[in-house]
Amino acid sequence: MRGEPLDAETIVSVTEELLRRHGPEKTTVLDVARALGVSHGSVYRHFPSKVALREAVIQCWLGRMREPLTAADQGPGSAPHDRLRGLLTAMVATKRAKAKEDPELFATFRVLAKEHSAVFSAHVDDLLARIRAIVVDGIASGDFAAVDPDVTARAMLDATCRFRDPGYAVEWSTPGIEAESDAVIALILDGIRARPSERSKRPRPR
Amino acid sequence: MRGEPLDAETIVSVTEELLRRHGPEKTTVLDVARALGVSHGSVYRHFPSKVALREAVIQCWLGRMREPLTAADQGPGSAPHDRLRGLLTAMVATKRAKAKEDPELFATFRVLAKEHSAVFSAHVDDLLARIRAIVVDGIASGDFAAVDPDVTARAMLDATCRFRDPGYAVEWSTPGIEAESDAVIALILDGIRARPSERSKRPRPR
Repeated sequence: MRGEPLDAETIVSVTEELLRRHGPEKTTVLDVARALGVSHGSVYRHFPSKVALREAVIQCWLGRMREPLTAADQGPGSAPHDRLRGLLTAMVATKRAKAKEDPELFATFRVLAKEHSAVFSAHVDDLLARIRAIVVDGIASGDFAAVDPDVTARAMLDATCRFRDPGYAVEWSTPGIEAESDAVIALILDGIRARPSERSKRPRPR
Repeated sequence: MRGEPLDAETIVSVTEELLRRHGPEKTTVLDVARALGVSHGSVYRHFPSKVALREAVIQCWLGRMREPLTAADQGPGSAPHDRLRGLLTAMVATKRAKAKEDPELFATFRVLAKEHSAVFSAHVDDLLARIRAIVVDGIASGDFAAVDPDVTARAMLDATCRFRDPGYAVEWSTPGIEAESDAVIALILDGIRARPSERSKRPRPR
């Protein structure tokens, strides 16, 4: 960009800005090159196709979406119940915050989700793995019932869909939405708690 | 209709058929009158407007959707846990069945839901009341924890939205969807179960 060496990060950042302002239809590799003041060949040197460039932008955005999740989980030292509540609450809070702070980009990524579903599936797999890891720890410590961690992680993600799925974004600004998501999270956390009679068993995680 | 006296039920039934075949755009009062072989004045004698006619059709459809729910609940004689599982399972199973058996009409009602949201809200209120009634019974019998029945009914409806909300209908034919909804229902049923230490308390319902 005007003398500076062009790096992938700069291209991704400029592409994101164009997507935010003009939407996916009007953000081609040529548009990106123009905004950077370089030839489209310079962009293609970093990203072999428009698809590859867009996927890099989505990856970057989803990566930022996951940062608060990593921060929310205090790790195996804390009580599994608190860790899981922290993770699930952060999942819905981050989505809500992104939709509110940057509605244009949020809407853009909703459109892109249909065309680049594999990238979004990988993100969902990451969320499932995070829930699963805490469930496994909680079973091992005897805090959680001896559930199937995969089935339970999926059920927890499903049960919170009203607060995570962008299709419901219009409902996220209604008053009481936070109390409603807290109620669902509390219900599913109670659902996984070990019964006192099970606590002594301390089953091993699968 | 050709000599027979025209009743509201016949008008509703013919309107539903037109909605199924041609969609909301092409189902006016005039179209309905034409299909019945009567003047549009005859239709207006029963329904003062297109809106009133459509709402009668939606009411009728939603009423049929609730029939299996009434059948599923065996009433206060049975265990609250089983009643609630029966009700929630019937809620998602009925939606799935309607979407599969009659996809055209299902798609039509999805469109109509936006314009006639009050009728659909009343349906949701009915679902909430059904869940709430069992929750109250379960708290009274000491089978359920002493939760707030309104908050819990809402949380249960929210937690099952992936399996009830027509926005997800395309996912309802994927293999494993039934196991996934069963897992969510099992999780929230475990979430409301009284802890053994609470059973002796037998709190009164609010």
